[in-house]
Amino acid sequence: MTNAGLGGSSTVSATNEHGEPVDVLLVEERPLTIYLDKQEIVTVMTMGSAPELLVLGYLKNQNLIDKLSDIKVIQVDWETAAVAVVTSAEVQDVAAMTQTKIITSGCGQGTMFGSLTEKLDDVKIAKRQLKKDTIYQILENLSQHNIMYKKAGAVHGCALCTDEEIIYFVEDVGRHNAVDTIAGHMWLNGLSGDQCVFYTTGRLTSEMVIKVAQMNVPVLLSRSGATKMGLDMAQKVGITLISRAKGQRFQVLSGGDNISYSV
Amino acid sequence: MTNAGLGGSSTVSATNEHGEPVDVLLVEERPLTIYLDKQEIVTVMTMGSAPELLVLGYLKNQNLIDKLSDIKVIQVDWETAAVAVVTSAEVQDVAAMTQTKIITSGCGQGTMFGSLTEKLDDVKIAKRQLKKDTIYQILENLSQHNIMYKKAGAVHGCALCTDEEIIYFVEDVGRHNAVDTIAGHMWLNGLSGDQCVFYTTGRLTSEMVIKVAQMNVPVLLSRSGATKMGLDMAQKVGITLISRAKGQRFQVLSGGDNISYSV
Repeated sequence: MTNAGLGGSSTVSATNEHGEPVDVLLVEERPLTIYLDKQEIVTVMTMGSAPELLVLGYLKNQNLIDKLSDIKVIQVDWETAAVAVVTSAEVQDVAAMTQTKIITSGCGQGTMFGSLTEKLDDVKIAKRQLKKDTIYQILENLSQHNIMYKKAGAVHGCALCTDEEIIYFVEDVGRHNAVDTIAGHMWLNGLSGDQCVFYTTGRLTSEMVIKVAQMNVPVLLSRSGATKMGLDMAQKVGITLISRAKGQRFQVLSGGDNISYSV
Repeated sequence: MTNAGLGGSSTVSATNEHGEPVDVLLVEERPLTIYLDKQEIVTVMTMGSAPELLVLGYLKNQNLIDKLSDIKVIQVDWETAAVAVVTSAEVQDVAAMTQTKIITSGCGQGTMFGSLTEKLDDVKIAKRQLKKDTIYQILENLSQHNIMYKKAGAVHGCALCTDEEIIYFVEDVGRHNAVDTIAGHMWLNGLSGDQCVFYTTGRLTSEMVIKVAQMNVPVLLSRSGATKMGLDMAQKVGITLISRAKGQRFQVLSGGDNISYSV
C-alpha cells in the first residue's frame, strides 16, 4: 500500500445454497477521478491500495506525461474521490489527446488513446532466454501472493518478476489498474523491464500486450488465455507470450525458441 | 450471430510445457469504431459475433439514444472496422454527453457516462420470488452454452433467462460487450426483463449491476464474485444478487428473502 492506500475488502452477510447465513469477503471498488492540471481526465474504479502509483502508471501508459520530472504533485483525496496531478510544465492539449478513445476488452481502465497502437510500430523487444524451471520458480514465488484473490476473488493480480524474485505485486478490481500500478512503480523507481517477466492473472488481450511492450518487458506470463490479437501484437513486438500458466502447465504462444525445456 | 457477425476464433500453433507442439484455439478480438451520425463515439474491442446488437445495446446503456425508432440504420463495415449509426433526429450534443467518462472495472466497454449513476436514483426493481431449484435449472440450461469459453477461454458469457429457458446467450472478449449485446437484443425485440434472470460469467461490479438495473431484470446471477460496490448498488435498486453460482453452489448477497430454499 502507498501513503493514500486504502483497505481492500469488507465482510458482508450472505446466504448459501442451503439458506444458511455465511460471511462473504468482498473486495472494495471505489471511483477515483483523475485531474491533470485541473483538467478532468477520467474516473477509474479501483480497489485503492496504491492510488498514486496507479495514477502515475495510467498517465504514463496513456502517454499523457513524458517525463517523471514534469510531475510536481499527486494528491489523492478519497473524501472527494479525486486525485489532483500537478505538472510543472502545462501538459499539451489533453482534450485533443483524449479525443480518440479505445474501449478495450481489458478489465479496469478500458481506455487507450488511438495514437498508442501506432506508437507500437517503433517498439521491438530484445530476446530473452528463459528456462522452463524458471517459469515454475516464478509461479512458485507468486503462490505466496494473490492474497485478495484467494480471500475475496473478483480481483486481478499482476507482478513484475525477475527469475529469482517478485519485485512488485499488486491486485486491483481491474487487471489494467494492476498493470498501470506496476508501470507507475517502475517509472517512479527507474526500473528497466528488459530482464524481467511480467505476470498477470488476467487474459492476454491486445491492450495487455501493448502495455507490457511499453514497459519493455520481454516475457508476458498469464494464468489465463489469450486473444488472437494479443498474440499478433506479441509476435509483432517480439514478446514471449505464455498462457495458461498454472502449476506445472503452460502454453508458449509466441517466442517458443526463447524457452529452454531441458532441466 | 447477426448479419454482420464474424467467426469468433482461430487455431494457432503453440508449444506446451514439454516443448511439444500443440494447437491452441484463440478467440478473435477486433476493434470496431462506432460513429453516431458521423460523430466518432468510441472504439470497442469485440469478438464480433453480433456487432449490430452490441452497438444498439451500447448506445442504449450509455443513454446516447432514447427511442429505438430514432435509429434509421446500423451499418457494420469490418473492412474499415467501423459501424455507422444513422439517426432520424440528430441526437443531442454527443460531445457534451461523452465528456464525463468513467472507466470501470468491467471487462470490455469500460466507459459509462457520469449521468448514469445519478439516473440510478430513480430505479427501483420489483421483487421477484425464485426457487432454489430454478437457479439449478438455469445453471443446467446454461451448461449447454458457454461454447467459446469451453473451447478457447478468454471470453465472458452473458445470458437472458426465464425460469424455464435461455432467451438469448452471447459471448464476447469483454463481459460488458456481452451485456450490451443482450441489452440490444432486448431493445430490438421489445423484451421486458421483469420476469427474467440475468446470468454472467463475469464479476458483479458496480457497472454490471447498473446495466442490469437499466434492463429492469430483478435477478443477477454470476459464476464469479462481487465487489462491495456492486452489492451496494444491488441493494439500492432492489436486485437479487447471487454470486459464485456453480454446480450445486451459490451465495445470495442481496435479496435473500426472495429465494425459497424448500424443495
